[in-house]
Amino acid sequence: MKNKVQLIAYIDRFGKKGIAEFHAFLSDHLKDHFEGGIHLLPFYNTIDGADAGYDPKDHTQVDPRLGDWEDIKKLSDEFDLMADLIVNHISSDSREFQDVKMHGHNSQYFDLFLTKEKVFPKGASESLIKKIYRPRPNLPFTTIKVGQDEEYDFWTTFTSDQIDIDVLHQKGSAYISQILKTFSLNGIKSIRLDAAGYAIKKPETSCFMIPETYDFIGEFSSKARAMGIDVLVEIHTHYKHQIEIASKVDYVYDFALPPLILHTIAKKSGTQLKNWLEISPRNCVTVLDTHDGIGIVDIAKQDDNPGLLSDEEVDYLVESIHKNSNNTSRIASGEGGSNLDIYQVNCSFYEALGKNSTHYLIARAIQFFCPGIPQVYYGGFLAAANDLKLLGTTKVGRDINRPYLEFDEVLQMLESSVVKDLSKLIKFRNTHPSFGGNFSVLPTSDDQIKLRWDLNDEWSELNIDLLKSNFEINYSMQEVESLLIF
Amino acid sequence: MKNKVQLIAYIDRFGKKGIAEFHAFLSDHLKDHFEGGIHLLPFYNTIDGADAGYDPKDHTQVDPRLGDWEDIKKLSDEFDLMADLIVNHISSDSREFQDVKMHGHNSQYFDLFLTKEKVFPKGASESLIKKIYRPRPNLPFTTIKVGQDEEYDFWTTFTSDQIDIDVLHQKGSAYISQILKTFSLNGIKSIRLDAAGYAIKKPETSCFMIPETYDFIGEFSSKARAMGIDVLVEIHTHYKHQIEIASKVDYVYDFALPPLILHTIAKKSGTQLKNWLEISPRNCVTVLDTHDGIGIVDIAKQDDNPGLLSDEEVDYLVESIHKNSNNTSRIASGEGGSNLDIYQVNCSFYEALGKNSTHYLIARAIQFFCPGIPQVYYGGFLAAANDLKLLGTTKVGRDINRPYLEFDEVLQMLESSVVKDLSKLIKFRNTHPSFGGNFSVLPTSDDQIKLRWDLNDEWSELNIDLLKSNFEINYSMQEVESLLIF
Repeated sequence: MKNKVQLIAYIDRFGKKGIAEFHAFLSDHLKDHFEGGIHLLPFYNTIDGADAGYDPKDHTQVDPRLGDWEDIKKLSDEFDLMADLIVNHISSDSREFQDVKMHGHNSQYFDLFLTKEKVFPKGASESLIKKIYRPRPNLPFTTIKVGQDEEYDFWTTFTSDQIDIDVLHQKGSAYISQILKTFSLNGIKSIRLDAAGYAIKKPETSCFMIPETYDFIGEFSSKARAMGIDVLVEIHTHYKHQIEIASKVDYVYDFALPPLILHTIAKKSGTQLKNWLEISPRNCVTVLDTHDGIGIVDIAKQDDNPGLLSDEEVDYLVESIHKNSNNTSRIASGEGGSNLDIYQVNCSFYEALGKNSTHYLIARAIQFFCPGIPQVYYGGFLAAANDLKLLGTTKVGRDINRPYLEFDEVLQMLESSVVKDLSKLIKFRNTHPSFGGNFSVLPTSDDQIKLRWDLNDEWSELNIDLLKSNFEINYSMQEVESLLIF
Repeated sequence: MKNKVQLIAYIDRFGKKGIAEFHAFLSDHLKDHFEGGIHLLPFYNTIDGADAGYDPKDHTQVDPRLGDWEDIKKLSDEFDLMADLIVNHISSDSREFQDVKMHGHNSQYFDLFLTKEKVFPKGASESLIKKIYRPRPNLPFTTIKVGQDEEYDFWTTFTSDQIDIDVLHQKGSAYISQILKTFSLNGIKSIRLDAAGYAIKKPETSCFMIPETYDFIGEFSSKARAMGIDVLVEIHTHYKHQIEIASKVDYVYDFALPPLILHTIAKKSGTQLKNWLEISPRNCVTVLDTHDGIGIVDIAKQDDNPGLLSDEEVDYLVESIHKNSNNTSRIASGEGGSNLDIYQVNCSFYEALGKNSTHYLIARAIQFFCPGIPQVYYGGFLAAANDLKLLGTTKVGRDINRPYLEFDEVLQMLESSVVKDLSKLIKFRNTHPSFGGNFSVLPTSDDQIKLRWDLNDEWSELNIDLLKSNFEINYSMQEVESLLIF
């Protein structure tokens, strides 16, 4: 991956057209912005299942309403592309599961799917089930009648429409290989491995990020690397696990960064952020916002392991988001609102900062100065507000930050002063050579932050005064030294 | 009931204290406002079950956190009181149902409750079940294990924690009599018969407002009347049924009025409202807002019967509420948000009008000039906004319009200009003698409304110009003729 800013977008929500139109728009208007490429959110058949594309019926087919693989290939000629590989599950409407429904255990696809019995051949006691780590407050099984009077408890980690795949079975492995091969043939350069932490189930364990999961991710990464594809592993977990995972894979997300930045701005205190930057993984992708909510497990304590923030600080942070968003994030988060992950706060990042443009630019400046390849979600790029209309229509909590925008609306949003200032920051991050060098956190008081990059004679420095809520960026220029002030 | 303005309030949400403090506050500050008395929302044991007091554990006991019957009796010395009688169901935590859980069909309370088998002794086919009219998109039964390995499908019209009562059985009848007697002994002058439309179940019917339901309500009303208690029947239904029900009971709600007023203001068109006032029941209680949402079935078509508004007008109305409330009502309404009734829009009335004070005062003026005894919900009286914080915490859609307010907050809200103007209107409605006389809708163009009351030489007239969004009230005074302009 290039060390430049990437866009994260749904093709059908950013412009509401197909791949070709999306391509033309980016080419015409945003080529200088997203030199790092694009993380395309799921575009497989179909994009409108139970989980906005994350429950494909056919992972190797482009949703025909968007276009085809030829369009993806053309887009990849101009932008480096990252795509999601969903290893954990597949839609219950998939051809494969429909075949199981018809033929039961005689289906050729029966072993593609995971049942409770396969994991617990001797039966599962309540205490065994309770050990399983859950993103949702219910059981991970759905009883489904298949074939001639057969009935199985299928593993359904997320929703009952998403049937978990037995990734350790040869059928599961072949399924994943087929997707990788399709990606490789069609110009996909990196993969985001979705919900990988849940892929491996084993009795007596939490079934989440157990040693066997690391092995699985490692093997998967080798397979991908052999095809010239990078792997970004998506896992929300305690920060120590994230550091451990980072040591074993190509890239992880720095999911601690978004809540820590919110904490820094809300409390006008930079100490916890600076502490994190001393130990955070360097082989990371940074985000402030994604199509999911703002992660809380990533900075909270887990059992006896302290988190990056104390319980009180976490509470204060979550309450400050709710307050800044006029409580709309409270409605969209937690139990209710069809939330797949109750440990996330659903809110646009701009609203999480109370639509304060200076705070928002400070947050983005911190992101761009932190180690890692910066990704910017289309909603955040356009400083979108919470989409109460969509939330009200779908009742899906995460839709509060997944707006459908016509290209006309996008063009209008590009004209706002906060987006213009953010664009300046993005272009600076893309072009200044210092970001290829060494990173340092300069010593400052709690209410100041100074982040610096050095590459030979080139340097750049971000100075933030949290009390005064302002920041400046100083940097070397080939001819003169200059100053960018917001 | 007196023909004066009544307050509707939860004791625990209006002031957040007990009955005695509630009493003292009303006595000190609002005695001139609510000369008609108070409809006390459920104050039984307990007020915080699955449905904000509408699922009592013991209907004949005051929740001890609020006080006791002695406090209610004292309050009734100063204000006429209306209380809810919940005939359809009782909490699954009630002593009675707990006894059934313990002893199964041997419990002395077994026949107090309705099971599927009692209604469908020969079994219920899917086509029979589909005939049942539902306020929610699911089945009206909950399978519960009781006694020694017994299992029954109990009727649960609303939530699975609210077990329906067999009102036709002697046990059910005795249960209701006991409540009536308690009310009568403690100064309750009127009863609001909650969800009465669902009380009678019969195979091959919709189990909603069937002829047997009318009989039941009639018999219940006679029983109450014999104890000196008026009955207000709460039913949301097609306007023609409402007119039919009105002819058989003491009082009904004019539930068509709130959506028609919103339509009138949104479309600047008074024709439909004036048409309704030609045929609307006169023995009614008027409301704009209640603890429930804004009813839509009351003005919509039903099967082949046209409604008071066309489908397009209903859509426009609902969309205008969502737009005025910045889509917060969309989030709180429909399927999702634990809504008990998907045919209602959950929104404060003030927000349904976009917090436009003039529009709000026009709406109240129309209410007060329409036939019927006007009730004002505490949220509407205080021009409360949608409570996104409470909604976000509880995820109960109707909580958007059920704020918890300290007395200090109430006092502050009383100082706002819109509440001061509303108070003027309320006092005018309470004191002008014309409202005891004859009502007429004067002929005007579509964008004007003129409502008039005459009693001997006393008269009052409301003139509204919908295009200019203004209104005036002219009225006779004992000495001089005067003008009240907003």
